[in-house]
Amino acid sequence: MKILIAGIDGYLGWTLAQHLGVKGHEISGIDNFARRDWVAEMGSHTVIPIEGMATRLKALSEVHGVEVDFHVGDLMNYTFTRRVIENVKPECIVHFGEQPSAPYSMKSPQHASYTQSNNIVGTLNILYAMRDYAPKCHLLKLGTMGEYGTPNIDIPEGYFEIEYRGRSDRLPFPRQAGSWYHQTKVHDSHNIMFACKIWRLCSTDIMQGVVYGTHADTMTDSRLRTRFDFDEAFGTAINRFCAQAVIEYPLSPYGIGHQQRGFIALRDSMQCINIAIDNPPEEGEYRVFNQFDEVYNIYQLAEIVRNAGKRQRLNVTIHGIQNPRIEAEEHYYNPDSKRLRELGFKPTKTLDDELDIMFKDLIEHRDRIEEKKHTIFPKIKWSGK
Amino acid sequence: MKILIAGIDGYLGWTLAQHLGVKGHEISGIDNFARRDWVAEMGSHTVIPIEGMATRLKALSEVHGVEVDFHVGDLMNYTFTRRVIENVKPECIVHFGEQPSAPYSMKSPQHASYTQSNNIVGTLNILYAMRDYAPKCHLLKLGTMGEYGTPNIDIPEGYFEIEYRGRSDRLPFPRQAGSWYHQTKVHDSHNIMFACKIWRLCSTDIMQGVVYGTHADTMTDSRLRTRFDFDEAFGTAINRFCAQAVIEYPLSPYGIGHQQRGFIALRDSMQCINIAIDNPPEEGEYRVFNQFDEVYNIYQLAEIVRNAGKRQRLNVTIHGIQNPRIEAEEHYYNPDSKRLRELGFKPTKTLDDELDIMFKDLIEHRDRIEEKKHTIFPKIKWSGK
Repeated sequence: MKILIAGIDGYLGWTLAQHLGVKGHEISGIDNFARRDWVAEMGSHTVIPIEGMATRLKALSEVHGVEVDFHVGDLMNYTFTRRVIENVKPECIVHFGEQPSAPYSMKSPQHASYTQSNNIVGTLNILYAMRDYAPKCHLLKLGTMGEYGTPNIDIPEGYFEIEYRGRSDRLPFPRQAGSWYHQTKVHDSHNIMFACKIWRLCSTDIMQGVVYGTHADTMTDSRLRTRFDFDEAFGTAINRFCAQAVIEYPLSPYGIGHQQRGFIALRDSMQCINIAIDNPPEEGEYRVFNQFDEVYNIYQLAEIVRNAGKRQRLNVTIHGIQNPRIEAEEHYYNPDSKRLRELGFKPTKTLDDELDIMFKDLIEHRDRIEEKKHTIFPKIKWSGK
Repeated sequence: MKILIAGIDGYLGWTLAQHLGVKGHEISGIDNFARRDWVAEMGSHTVIPIEGMATRLKALSEVHGVEVDFHVGDLMNYTFTRRVIENVKPECIVHFGEQPSAPYSMKSPQHASYTQSNNIVGTLNILYAMRDYAPKCHLLKLGTMGEYGTPNIDIPEGYFEIEYRGRSDRLPFPRQAGSWYHQTKVHDSHNIMFACKIWRLCSTDIMQGVVYGTHADTMTDSRLRTRFDFDEAFGTAINRFCAQAVIEYPLSPYGIGHQQRGFIALRDSMQCINIAIDNPPEEGEYRVFNQFDEVYNIYQLAEIVRNAGKRQRLNVTIHGIQNPRIEAEEHYYNPDSKRLRELGFKPTKTLDDELDIMFKDLIEHRDRIEEKKHTIFPKIKWSGK
């Protein structure tokens, strides 16, 4: 299948290019390398060294015989986006090409506006180009479980049957996102839902949990490694905790740490996306998959990472810090995640197995974590004060 | 009270400046005159001639003794927005400063992106400036009844108590907007809700029905008249029908015309906004008012306008045309609108009385409608084809 990956230079994008390429799909990619700039702006770097795109593509060809058709450019530029989609005529677009950090989006009014217009306009441009040049294409869009917030009721997959004052309807589940970044995913969801309705496009909107991991089976050459961030903005919960543990920097749950979230390993995220690609929606269908494996609270995770660190003979402590975010720290949380399992998703490894692999990878680059450890402690506060 | 009106040069903004100025409030205003450019881009003009801002302000001072502190600039520019809010220190901001046309937003990918980033970034900039320079200020934001779409259940005012799988919560009512423009209002609502939560700002989000009318009691001098658009993009249902009737151009409901919407007269919209200003929300409160007087379907409206035209001895016919929009033409519609009535809102005139005033005003400028009548027929199609 012809698959276009927007954001192919990123943590998920580069991993997916290999995963799908090895399976025999024809891969095209778009990136403007913005993620590299954002992390540099945070004063940090990826723990696992990564190559420039030219070397990456060469390695992918040499190691796996996969030739990627790569386009440098910005999704904000409609002419660029249209031209790529017009030329590639993809059967599936996997859209990772967005600013993905909540703290980065909360840094200043400029960062808020940049994140919202960047993410929304990029997606609008893809939708328009699909309408005119690839109307049967399946848009697989990366959303986030964070779109839903933490309501006091179960969270279905995107839609729910509701009874209200004696009448009923099937409606989009209410969204209560917790950062300007998370809000962009809500805005995208609404925009995509509308485009599917009026233009009969089809899309899978993936509400993904927090992804963790350093590795996928295809990364048999150092040039194929994907990035791994641990700074306050681009490092996510498990990944950052592991980096902290490696340098024996106390793990730092925010607040009391009872915030519950869904998590999924990098390799399982690839598996799920693969399943979604193999089972496309109908023409005109907008569907939502909640994509995570297990739910943990942040404090539990810190304990699990501490224990994994102990297995590596690391002296890992946990030291909760004031929550830089404004969010419920105690809440009900019961999201559904049936649809991908019904289509065959089976988690490949336990969290502990995955953590052992991560520690091995990260210990090798301990110096790189040490060098930028000042970027771990959160300075960006939701209050702005 | 110190009130800042964003979009003071517009149909509602200029009317509100007079309405609130005459009541003794201290009025500041922002505009970049974009509305004048958009209508010119549509090849059209306002039926009722309007003055430039300098003349408008002079007239407001001479006729009503109201001095407006006016700032030319773009809300997309954070520095500009911040400076105005920092200097004015408003107690209330009435935010009309957005691109308000659904067809205009559907014209091209560029118009879609422009509308979404313009509206969203302008509102984000206001929220940030409020946080830092006017945190107690009441943000009165113009939304639209169109945010809700046409669900098969009653539409509450913004939030609803919901029971789901044996648990309950009070959640934002699901949104299903029908154009890129309407989507911006959904996105704004989510962003404002979030800002109120994290920064304890307060806001009234007004889900307004379609506004109609040519006149307010303060417009006793021709220099005080507000604009009145009738082109396919900026003319709304009743206003455009009246303009059509005046030149005996067949009234053109879209499709079968059974689409139901809420409507409100210009002078009643002013009354409602005034009520919302006089009854501000609590600190940290985000509240939603559904602001309309009566619900009609579009065909009924055409008949009412036809009859009003007959009273003026005009030969008005109705000729439905293919719907350029993609929307339900037969649907359930039962939105609440209790909150403003509980605070004292009483509609001032019947639709027929208001139509008689409108016809009188428009007949005077029949030539100006005739001159641009080619801008009435809808060329912008939701399908893009």
